[in-house]
Amino acid sequence: MKIEEIGGEFALIDLLSERVPNTHGDLVVGIGDDAAVIRTAPEPAPYLLATTDIMVEDRHFRRRWAGPEQIGIKAAESNLSDIAAMGGRPTWMFISLVLTKDTDETWARRLYDGIGASCRRHGVIVAGGDTTRGAVNAINITLLGTVAPAHLCLRSQALPGDLLMVTGPLGASAAALDLLTRGEPVADYLLGKHLSPACRLDAAASIAPLVHAMIDISDGLGSEVHHICNRSQVSAEIHADAIPLHETVRAAGETLQTPPVDFAIRGGEDYELLFSIKAENLPALEKTGIDFYKVGKVTAGDATPVLLTAEGRLPLERGFDHF
Amino acid sequence: MKIEEIGGEFALIDLLSERVPNTHGDLVVGIGDDAAVIRTAPEPAPYLLATTDIMVEDRHFRRRWAGPEQIGIKAAESNLSDIAAMGGRPTWMFISLVLTKDTDETWARRLYDGIGASCRRHGVIVAGGDTTRGAVNAINITLLGTVAPAHLCLRSQALPGDLLMVTGPLGASAAALDLLTRGEPVADYLLGKHLSPACRLDAAASIAPLVHAMIDISDGLGSEVHHICNRSQVSAEIHADAIPLHETVRAAGETLQTPPVDFAIRGGEDYELLFSIKAENLPALEKTGIDFYKVGKVTAGDATPVLLTAEGRLPLERGFDHF
Repeated sequence: MKIEEIGGEFALIDLLSERVPNTHGDLVVGIGDDAAVIRTAPEPAPYLLATTDIMVEDRHFRRRWAGPEQIGIKAAESNLSDIAAMGGRPTWMFISLVLTKDTDETWARRLYDGIGASCRRHGVIVAGGDTTRGAVNAINITLLGTVAPAHLCLRSQALPGDLLMVTGPLGASAAALDLLTRGEPVADYLLGKHLSPACRLDAAASIAPLVHAMIDISDGLGSEVHHICNRSQVSAEIHADAIPLHETVRAAGETLQTPPVDFAIRGGEDYELLFSIKAENLPALEKTGIDFYKVGKVTAGDATPVLLTAEGRLPLERGFDHF
Repeated sequence: MKIEEIGGEFALIDLLSERVPNTHGDLVVGIGDDAAVIRTAPEPAPYLLATTDIMVEDRHFRRRWAGPEQIGIKAAESNLSDIAAMGGRPTWMFISLVLTKDTDETWARRLYDGIGASCRRHGVIVAGGDTTRGAVNAINITLLGTVAPAHLCLRSQALPGDLLMVTGPLGASAAALDLLTRGEPVADYLLGKHLSPACRLDAAASIAPLVHAMIDISDGLGSEVHHICNRSQVSAEIHADAIPLHETVRAAGETLQTPPVDFAIRGGEDYELLFSIKAENLPALEKTGIDFYKVGKVTAGDATPVLLTAEGRLPLERGFDHF
């Protein structure tokens, strides 16, 4: 059966996970969060975090739009973002690189310059990798990290009554992609967010001790709210008007005749953080100096989050599916 | 410049490694061995091991020759073999999967059945991964492990005077690939070695405490001897007649009019272990009950290993290059 017919990416992951051993007493969190959480010594020793992401040409990047440094930055930042979402600190990186016959070493070298820039910014060391030839250019990054057990943030930790917050404006990357695809001019702000995104490790370190659930926004706000609801066995209300949007995202909405909030909900690759927090922790959150935007709240219920709009309550759409 | 023009895979790795931060006080061994070795707590706490390998369709496997379970086994075993070569024990696995539009979920499920079989055999848990669509089927596996510092085996630990040993007959996988490519019949023994190889974790655990350098034979005996010589700053003599070959490899040599020893030296994917050991440790090695074959010895010199044949001393050829 085709992957679409079984229900797409997350149905596939469920189906594949059952074919392999996937539980262990020292696996605090396995498949299904932003990173795996592994106990390597008794608490309070830090947990080991591990995340892996593969980017394939013409699916995750296009050489005619993105320079090799930008592709490298995006590959690194998407993994760094997963470690940020756990409340962790990144440490060691492993890079697998597939190069086509017509790709030259200059492109590969500049790709690594981009990865290196992200690594230097966050104190990450490249400890290994693999290189091979193949029919399409692709980069797999595995990133390890550590987190103090007390600061670990999981998708499953949201509680009814929590406020739902994001760390920055959303939808810029998706708006840029749609404009590029249609051949429309793209504002520099949008292009920067799409081609050279920056993870929010800066914000995560301050936020992690204060919040319940946390997740990074890689597949659109819709998907991420659904993930938190599913894993926490709660529901949520998102206020469409409260979703922070940059003025250029609103302008893209006009150009493309798309409600701009759609870029935030169904688009992806924003790499901002979505978190749930109890109201009592708001003063402490404000003291961190980190910008945040309230977009809704966690409710009791069966993982059917809703979007509150001027037209009424709508089911919250899911975001990007890789299949 | 093309990758071939700069000198192939290992020149590329050197060139890319310098673009990224790659050294750290806790990185005992980084890029350039079978796995990275990371200090996570003061010795004698075990080191963390990490290795990553990517397999791309029509480069590392062909669906018309290999069933999905076999491809899964090979992907898992090639990584398990890297942990074996360090003297380690594998623990946690992370799988990235790229599927083309026409690949269905049954193929992916059976691929995971193969990976799962290898994981179960070696007590490995799949802790995470990533799935996406792309223009070619591909699998990246990252495998973590641990090793006691006293049992760690590196490519750099060979000493002049050491004996060079392998754990089993070589060249079967390369002979099978050549026969398949030419459309010749392939003996079951060869086909099994090529399509469903088995790592030598069984042997590694007993051998590791007794040996100096160790490496797994994934790119041909020639490449692996060169790696040990380069990293240990030694040279080596390999006796062509001493390289163990199965009778079906000799028969393949006749069919293909190739000296059968070439399959061992220039072929790859045997996943046996090559190690250097001082003669005094031979009695202890014999007591382990593990089969081993002496193929040569380590000499003082400048990493120009030679092959001793009936025709005289020849430079030892390198094995498979992925570019």
